[in-house]
Amino acid sequence: MKKCNIGIVGAGTVGIGLLEMIRDQKEAILEKTGLDITVLEIATRTPSKVPKWVEAKVSNDINSIIKNPSIDIVVELIGGSTTALEIVQSALKNGKTFVTANKALISEHGSSLFDLALSHSLEIGYEAAVAGSIPIIRTLRNSLVTNQFSSISGILNGTTNFILTKMEVDQLTYKDALKLAQDLGFAESDPTFDVEGIDVAHKISILANLAFACKTSIEHITIQGITSIQDKDISNALEMGYRIKLIGSAFLKNGKILMSVQPTLVPFNHPLANVMFEKNAVYYTTSHSGAGMLIGSGAGAHPTASSVLADIIYYGKRRGSTPKELLELNQFPAAEYGKFNEEKSRYYLRFTTLDKPGVLAEIAKILGKYNISISSMQQEESLENEPTSVVILTHLAKVGDYTKSIQEIDSLKEIIKEPTISFPLMENM
Amino acid sequence: MKKCNIGIVGAGTVGIGLLEMIRDQKEAILEKTGLDITVLEIATRTPSKVPKWVEAKVSNDINSIIKNPSIDIVVELIGGSTTALEIVQSALKNGKTFVTANKALISEHGSSLFDLALSHSLEIGYEAAVAGSIPIIRTLRNSLVTNQFSSISGILNGTTNFILTKMEVDQLTYKDALKLAQDLGFAESDPTFDVEGIDVAHKISILANLAFACKTSIEHITIQGITSIQDKDISNALEMGYRIKLIGSAFLKNGKILMSVQPTLVPFNHPLANVMFEKNAVYYTTSHSGAGMLIGSGAGAHPTASSVLADIIYYGKRRGSTPKELLELNQFPAAEYGKFNEEKSRYYLRFTTLDKPGVLAEIAKILGKYNISISSMQQEESLENEPTSVVILTHLAKVGDYTKSIQEIDSLKEIIKEPTISFPLMENM
Repeated sequence: MKKCNIGIVGAGTVGIGLLEMIRDQKEAILEKTGLDITVLEIATRTPSKVPKWVEAKVSNDINSIIKNPSIDIVVELIGGSTTALEIVQSALKNGKTFVTANKALISEHGSSLFDLALSHSLEIGYEAAVAGSIPIIRTLRNSLVTNQFSSISGILNGTTNFILTKMEVDQLTYKDALKLAQDLGFAESDPTFDVEGIDVAHKISILANLAFACKTSIEHITIQGITSIQDKDISNALEMGYRIKLIGSAFLKNGKILMSVQPTLVPFNHPLANVMFEKNAVYYTTSHSGAGMLIGSGAGAHPTASSVLADIIYYGKRRGSTPKELLELNQFPAAEYGKFNEEKSRYYLRFTTLDKPGVLAEIAKILGKYNISISSMQQEESLENEPTSVVILTHLAKVGDYTKSIQEIDSLKEIIKEPTISFPLMENM
Repeated sequence: MKKCNIGIVGAGTVGIGLLEMIRDQKEAILEKTGLDITVLEIATRTPSKVPKWVEAKVSNDINSIIKNPSIDIVVELIGGSTTALEIVQSALKNGKTFVTANKALISEHGSSLFDLALSHSLEIGYEAAVAGSIPIIRTLRNSLVTNQFSSISGILNGTTNFILTKMEVDQLTYKDALKLAQDLGFAESDPTFDVEGIDVAHKISILANLAFACKTSIEHITIQGITSIQDKDISNALEMGYRIKLIGSAFLKNGKILMSVQPTLVPFNHPLANVMFEKNAVYYTTSHSGAGMLIGSGAGAHPTASSVLADIIYYGKRRGSTPKELLELNQFPAAEYGKFNEEKSRYYLRFTTLDKPGVLAEIAKILGKYNISISSMQQEESLENEPTSVVILTHLAKVGDYTKSIQEIDSLKEIIKEPTISFPLMENM
């Protein structure tokens, strides 16, 4: 039996979920793992909101946790990358192991934090930072470490997957689906980070670091959110045999990394197509073990808390008995990046046009000029002089050529009424 | 950097695959994990078949590996539970960490072996024993240890999943699909262990042990193989919205374990329905994190070797630096078992009858006597006096009542021409 005392900073839904899990499973964890976990202190802005049954000291004094010599692990659950950054730095300097669910912190400051941890012979756990309850960080570190990855990708944001699923299943507009997600607590009142793809970008950069053993930055990620998706795009895609999913992906090609976050048309027979509602999934392809995928709950208090608790157990057991040379490494050489615009993909394009003779010829001419050939085309019937949709699936063409051709087409103000919508099809996975 | 010397017993396809992976990735593993792996010795019945590039000592002398004081880890890749049992026992007695891909060994002798290992302060790795490249053992131990499982189930045998997929996709008979699997090296010349469900039974008992922290035995598993499945069952199921998969499952119900291996009708929208060819998958439901699934390559030299190698790295790093009280525990109290016959399920039933007036009434009467009500029924058209199929989907009824009613129906020799085929539908997962 080994004792492990923790201090928790932040007592929102995940923090309370964690306290509940420790209360309910303290004995079972001791029996299964030999670790005896006790929560000594909790720091929160609103101590009055911590339930009465909690036996730990509750205050709004983060420093009390950092300075408490009996605390082994500091758990940070406040999010963001300002106060959280100060907490992790002072926790490490005071000899604490650090466990967090904070993807922004790890994605933006991971490199310097891992240096600092190593210099104090400490480790940082961040399983809960990516894909909720799915144990992808531990799996990449321990089990898949023998693999050479060619790609890692996934549905990494429960909020946007819930919105897209509701748009399909209940034929909601984007706006109504977002509102429903907010009402149900799946989306925040300011949903920007989720719906614009920033949250996924943080997560895919963390996964790419571990899969490819390199240090990536979200500045090198092509990011497109879901706000331009209309219900008709969802139904068009379904008719063609695809589901639109917000996919974060990282590929290794000729030693260079290509990363993107984009709404993507995923064919029905791809395992990622069937990941619905707030579920998350991580899909990978490797040289030796083929493809694999992990699915699980991507959001919610208990799914996230279960990953935090798994980290507490894992690092709690390692703390003090792991020689410095066997501490987990997170320090990798900087990634080299491929040119995204040179990559080839098929695309779904939706043009909003006036239903005039010659419109299609005009669009096709410009696409042809950029070597984009059309695989299929559908034009919506419309009332006279009302805007109508032209939907095109293309054959393989260069990403940069799509950008240029769409710019040119969108400048045809007399026939193009709204900015063209474009999503890639999932390729080579 | 920590040195780790290994000896490998068995140099079949997985053994050679492992040697290739270590050759190709020695440097990358050292860089990523700090562990420097060297293969010192290989013991095999046919030393001449080991490739020339292998630098280790190659012999047919297992004892030389066991007695070599420089060897830290003995890797057993010969399978079976007689010679393998002697090897693991003497390896542990000689202070070696033991890594194996042998599900029969762990399922049948695990309990005494884990005792023996613990008494020598050693650990046993068996990630590769279940579901090929899928890291389910490590995930259950480290990441999902915080969960209370209500069920764990899966497609755990690549051979039978390949056969069932080929029967569907290419409309092969069972016999032709089996032959194809044998020709492609997915099935052994004696496929009994795979097609009769024994292999899956070993695996689900190992998973149940870890998920429910209890000691299960395959004697308590209801086992049905795939040999009675006909191509018409596959197509009948598809028409009704199901795929037939060989599912191993373990449930916890009122503190009691229920385990089965059965061909099961899995609805299309269940994630297990879309696991095709030789892929494996493990699906679980938990109290705190909802449902989750891991998919990956379930068979083949490199997928299995990748799990063996992951174990070598994991236990190689822990060896010597893990205090005895933090060694992994595999010792659990004996399971209590529920009564399978008392469980309720819906069933797919196929009767082979003479197309005579009154046949259906006779069948329906007996089903009714055992409280089995019919959800849907289809009767094949047939030539006069030729046997024909009656396919029935039932509502929920007790498993034991299906057995009794089928016995009674099959005794109607004047109308029932072949033993009735029965598969459960997947429930509550």
